[in-house]
Amino acid sequence: MIKNKDKKLNLGIVGGGAKSWIGHVHRIASRFDDQYQIVAGVFSRDTKLSIKFGVSIGISKDRCYSNFKEMADKESKRNDGINVVSIMTPPASHQIIAEAFIDKNINIISDKPFAGNIEQAKKLYKKIKSNKKIKYVLTHNYSAYPMVREAKMLVEKGKIGKIEYVNVEYVQDWSGGNTITTKNMKKELKWKIDKNIVGTSAVLNEIGTHAYHLATYISGLKGKSIFADIKQISKKIKMDDNAQVMINFANGAKGMLWTSVMARGGVYGLRVRVFGTKGSLEWVQNDPGYLRHNPAKGAVRLLERGFHNAEFSKNFSRIKFGHPEGYLDAFANIYKEFASSLKNKTKKRYFYPNEDEGFETAKFINACKISSKQKKWVKI
Amino acid sequence: MIKNKDKKLNLGIVGGGAKSWIGHVHRIASRFDDQYQIVAGVFSRDTKLSIKFGVSIGISKDRCYSNFKEMADKESKRNDGINVVSIMTPPASHQIIAEAFIDKNINIISDKPFAGNIEQAKKLYKKIKSNKKIKYVLTHNYSAYPMVREAKMLVEKGKIGKIEYVNVEYVQDWSGGNTITTKNMKKELKWKIDKNIVGTSAVLNEIGTHAYHLATYISGLKGKSIFADIKQISKKIKMDDNAQVMINFANGAKGMLWTSVMARGGVYGLRVRVFGTKGSLEWVQNDPGYLRHNPAKGAVRLLERGFHNAEFSKNFSRIKFGHPEGYLDAFANIYKEFASSLKNKTKKRYFYPNEDEGFETAKFINACKISSKQKKWVKI
Amino acid sequence: MIKNKDKKLNLGIVGGGAKSWIGHVHRIASRFDDQYQIVAGVFSRDTKLSIKFGVSIGISKDRCYSNFKEMADKESKRNDGINVVSIMTPPASHQIIAEAFIDKNINIISDKPFAGNIEQAKKLYKKIKSNKKIKYVLTHNYSAYPMVREAKMLVEKGKIGKIEYVNVEYVQDWSGGNTITTKNMKKELKWKIDKNIVGTSAVLNEIGTHAYHLATYISGLKGKSIFADIKQISKKIKMDDNAQVMINFANGAKGMLWTSVMARGGVYGLRVRVFGTKGSLEWVQNDPGYLRHNPAKGAVRLLERGFHNAEFSKNFSRIKFGHPEGYLDAFANIYKEFASSLKNKTKKRYFYPNEDEGFETAKFINACKISSKQKKWVKI
Amino acid sequence: MIKNKDKKLNLGIVGGGAKSWIGHVHRIASRFDDQYQIVAGVFSRDTKLSIKFGVSIGISKDRCYSNFKEMADKESKRNDGINVVSIMTPPASHQIIAEAFIDKNINIISDKPFAGNIEQAKKLYKKIKSNKKIKYVLTHNYSAYPMVREAKMLVEKGKIGKIEYVNVEYVQDWSGGNTITTKNMKKELKWKIDKNIVGTSAVLNEIGTHAYHLATYISGLKGKSIFADIKQISKKIKMDDNAQVMINFANGAKGMLWTSVMARGGVYGLRVRVFGTKGSLEWVQNDPGYLRHNPAKGAVRLLERGFHNAEFSKNFSRIKFGHPEGYLDAFANIYKEFASSLKNKTKKRYFYPNEDEGFETAKFINACKISSKQKKWVKI
Repeated sequence: MIKNKDKKLNLGIVGGGAKSWIGHVHRIASRFDDQYQIVAGVFSRDTKLSIKFGVSIGISKDRCYSNFKEMADKESKRNDGINVVSIMTPPASHQIIAEAFIDKNINIISDKPFAGNIEQAKKLYKKIKSNKKIKYVLTHNYSAYPMVREAKMLVEKGKIGKIEYVNVEYVQDWSGGNTITTKNMKKELKWKIDKNIVGTSAVLNEIGTHAYHLATYISGLKGKSIFADIKQISKKIKMDDNAQVMINFANGAKGMLWTSVMARGGVYGLRVRVFGTKGSLEWVQNDPGYLRHNPAKGAVRLLERGFHNAEFSKNFSRIKFGHPEGYLDAFANIYKEFASSLKNKTKKRYFYPNEDEGFETAKFINACKISSKQKKWVKI
Repeated sequence: MIKNKDKKLNLGIVGGGAKSWIGHVHRIASRFDDQYQIVAGVFSRDTKLSIKFGVSIGISKDRCYSNFKEMADKESKRNDGINVVSIMTPPASHQIIAEAFIDKNINIISDKPFAGNIEQAKKLYKKIKSNKKIKYVLTHNYSAYPMVREAKMLVEKGKIGKIEYVNVEYVQDWSGGNTITTKNMKKELKWKIDKNIVGTSAVLNEIGTHAYHLATYISGLKGKSIFADIKQISKKIKMDDNAQVMINFANGAKGMLWTSVMARGGVYGLRVRVFGTKGSLEWVQNDPGYLRHNPAKGAVRLLERGFHNAEFSKNFSRIKFGHPEGYLDAFANIYKEFASSLKNKTKKRYFYPNEDEGFETAKFINACKISSKQKKWVKI
Repeated sequence: MIKNKDKKLNLGIVGGGAKSWIGHVHRIASRFDDQYQIVAGVFSRDTKLSIKFGVSIGISKDRCYSNFKEMADKESKRNDGINVVSIMTPPASHQIIAEAFIDKNINIISDKPFAGNIEQAKKLYKKIKSNKKIKYVLTHNYSAYPMVREAKMLVEKGKIGKIEYVNVEYVQDWSGGNTITTKNMKKELKWKIDKNIVGTSAVLNEIGTHAYHLATYISGLKGKSIFADIKQISKKIKMDDNAQVMINFANGAKGMLWTSVMARGGVYGLRVRVFGTKGSLEWVQNDPGYLRHNPAKGAVRLLERGFHNAEFSKNFSRIKFGHPEGYLDAFANIYKEFASSLKNKTKKRYFYPNEDEGFETAKFINACKISSKQKKWVKI
Repeated sequence: MIKNKDKKLNLGIVGGGAKSWIGHVHRIASRFDDQYQIVAGVFSRDTKLSIKFGVSIGISKDRCYSNFKEMADKESKRNDGINVVSIMTPPASHQIIAEAFIDKNINIISDKPFAGNIEQAKKLYKKIKSNKKIKYVLTHNYSAYPMVREAKMLVEKGKIGKIEYVNVEYVQDWSGGNTITTKNMKKELKWKIDKNIVGTSAVLNEIGTHAYHLATYISGLKGKSIFADIKQISKKIKMDDNAQVMINFANGAKGMLWTSVMARGGVYGLRVRVFGTKGSLEWVQNDPGYLRHNPAKGAVRLLERGFHNAEFSKNFSRIKFGHPEGYLDAFANIYKEFASSLKNKTKKRYFYPNEDEGFETAKFINACKISSKQKKWVKI
């Protein structure tokens, strides 16, 4: 696919301009392991602004675009054109942008959610599957923490037994307005509360999708049906900001998901617990280098990233045990693996989230919307 | 009510024989503050066994009964008869036993749950309310931890604002059979899995009732309707061992409750989180001397039992901050407060759980059973 | 020794009047397991006050004394006289009081420290050893926490290998005056800062002795020589309030002890860590039901009181794993074991701290005083 | 100093070849914020090996050297020569290498320790001070964690009051051989145990220097005299692997430092606590995004990186609160600040560790060696 394996991949970016924090994250992640060079981008619909920002991060003026179609078109015609595009625009535009690049055989790194709604998701999924020349990765970055992968492997190897229950929660605090002052909230949050921009459900598209992905990623389970209750709790903002969901998994296991952006107090927690016949696992993002393993028999075991009790985690860790890694290290794992995947034709297994996982999350969110409205269990 | 306030209260016990751990707990709790002397009891239906155990804990042979009705009858005729009876039999018998003593104007300390089912609960509630001479306390002991009461008071004083969300969970590990060997499980657990003994729902009557009580106790909220999903997950035992419940509270708040006895790994956790417009609170039984207060503005505050940042907790604490208190200290608070309540006619406010709270938990459990069966939201 | 094993032991108390918190602690501990009845006491040098308090806790007026010698004398002549005396007076009087009761063949429960200074300690130790009819227990209560004993047993069984390093600290916050207001400090703290009352060293006699005892109790090591630096840090109070000590143990291990009562912020921490060739152990009083075991190979193990990974701890625990025990439960273990020891002639091994351990702590404190003054290593 | 502020700085590297983990760390750190490009290096004394590795990380063959003097010489003559050199060789060579580049007016990023012994330290310090054209930074990377700097600022602003006590520890586990197999230990650890390579004291040069730096960095105190006890505890390796030090600070405060590489169990902990008249602070590297602030009055406060209760930390943080940062993020702060410092002539204050701090750590280590040998207090 990529011919010269020693060369850095040429990366283009759509979205993530000067004020974007996720743009900043993607760019650092792309530099982490020296596998990419950012050579093109659309950073604004305003050509001048796009150029201003693009040049400031080292891109040639002529490769700073204001339109993603133009970028796909022009870059695909260059000899030194981009191999990969990173899409970090609001949810409702993910599908249409990705399709433009897929049409030009350019590989895709997309920020979550997979798409803005189920119709978009179906189209995008079909499009990705239709082009065998490209690869697609969805930055469900939490799944790239070393100890999350250690957990996934423990489950896969049967160390936890048959999974019977999964509990996941991702709660944040911003719809209540304590971290963002009321004055500038409307402006700053505009894209987070406008359904045309955000897509199906604000809280589910924003962070609930991460929680559901993480639960299925570690447990290896597939959701079968759900019962959801989505609601706007905060009075300060117009969006659904809280969702609680009961899940029936295909293997008979039960589960529960809670996601919220109105959890006052700066509580910013992503936590997942998986219970099986042989024990249970617990991982929390606030303490990401550890995995708590509670075997049905014996003492609770604290597994540590990079230590000899968590050998698998070493594959996704850059520094010694005892020294913490964080969000950026995990995010960079996605970029690193994707580069390896693009440069190697071997059958090596990769652990980054792909279009199949993305499509599942889209179906999950859609089912939640229906269930909450109809107040009944709905198939995913 | 009790004339000589310096005298210890005469306490009778029904249930809690030699092998009972909750019996042991009640007896230690009754001794903690030197307010009771155990003078009578029914410890077995076999007279010899009842006498054997009763005498071993210092009760006169003639006050060791094998029948609660006989005990109620005879004790009520003695000049030095019991003032209070503690009932710690299986759930389905709570009502009938309590009624026998209420009829004799003897005060009641009852172990949870309030009753074995909603019909029993209604009768018992009516009976208690009909006799103004007696008082009733239900040992929802977790509500007597000093920092739980600090939490209740913070909510009551408005420090957390309007409550918008409550998340509570009580998970244990025994239906899976790792803490109890399979061989003797059937025998040991007999009363926990026989519906005629346990009542409506095993997991909800056993520990779910504690979780629901704690959530309403701290938040001050009243449940309005619920959606429940109760299920047997473990294959090793015939009982519903897992329940997840969504709650709509009367004030518009949402909530979620998860209770289970199949959470493998010795995970034995009671945790409650309350979110309001001004911040949130978190308390976990494993670390009972602390209350985490996350104000909407400012730093997370760790409040400590008995310390100057948790003044209210001092009312329910016996030892200095810095030194841990535990389950027994909290359990004993119920006995201590009840003795004070019986000895004093003053309008002093007490914080022990009463029949109103008990009746609410019974209605909650009943609604859960209906909802889980009918797969719809049900009024409490 | 005690003839009727079913009878409760008759307990007398010296010290611990109405305002004493340690008195309160001892009395609850004595009631915990129903092995003692408090029948006599000296609660004040003022007869009226002693009687007032004694009667309030259920003692007959004629057995409320104002002088410990009178009590020892009179009680020893009664048929129903005390079997055991609990001494909870200031340190400098421990020796003289204990000796009065030893002379009358009355068993001793003494609060720490062993004695007020090394001369007193030598005399007391000799006196105890000279009377084979009595037993002596020193309430180094922290050593009675179930998981401390689990730790001791793990070391004894060689699970930690040869011990190479011990780190212990006991820090509190009161000399700085934030928990006690400045106004009443002088009065309240009078006995804690007057050398004639406290003995050799305030901070070492008060809590340092606990820390040293705990370190040697768990590690099984004996101190050989020390280098100490004792100092008054707070300006608000006249006493040495901070001590740091390096320790050379007899087996070649090294160690460090830090104790302070000026650690601002309500930090009230007792923590001990023991490192051996096969791993390490960590226990902290704030989370007393857990013991962290870090094996040299494999995952960190969290051992839990009463759970199947900590079998030995069950011997010193009253309630199920998952439910916390605290300071009082541990304190009561001392009383329970001592009662068992007095009632049984069997060779059963007991784990309560005795006069040998007490004398070692006295020698340690004395060596610290000399070392800090002479600024050199001193033999214990 | 640096003319074109938009250009990346040209960075040369001495040390940190293929097998070096610290080399890997420095390179990632240099890429984090896109401020440097690595253009030259000495990666081996063997020219072929140096070229092989250098080319693999994108350096031109002709700028891969095998001798630092040659590199200093040749690079200083190029128009596009390096602006900065990063030195990550064993301690004993830090001085001589740094001096070669200082002579050529090339700025220095040096890994710790400052130098291999006090003589080297004195020379190096003098040399740095003698050249006003260059700047020097020492990668005491722990001081660059956002919450460490928040702590420093809280102390500086007087929030903790007058500092009275500092407790710091940095313990690791490798001399015991559980993380490194015995077979290859001698080879792998060669440079860590050879005094000619490591310098004065293995454990102090390796990690003790970090601990001392951190204690002084946060507290703002200067060490005055120390009493040290340095020892080889492990039998498996020939080096001093444990050091305990009592510290008298210039302001009258006391302190204690413990550092070890024989702490079995994978315990890898850097922890610092600072106590003042107004409260105390605690930071641990295992949970680096939080700072525990215990005010003398009021509740314990958990300050969080990037949150509104820790405004200062935002200056050194790249991502949102709630998402963890780690070791690399902190290390990169040193590179980022140094680049800013080199590009700006403004009087902006920087927080990276400089030669003054480095020299202090060298004097501290030297005093420890003398004290441990002479068994007395020694001036720093």
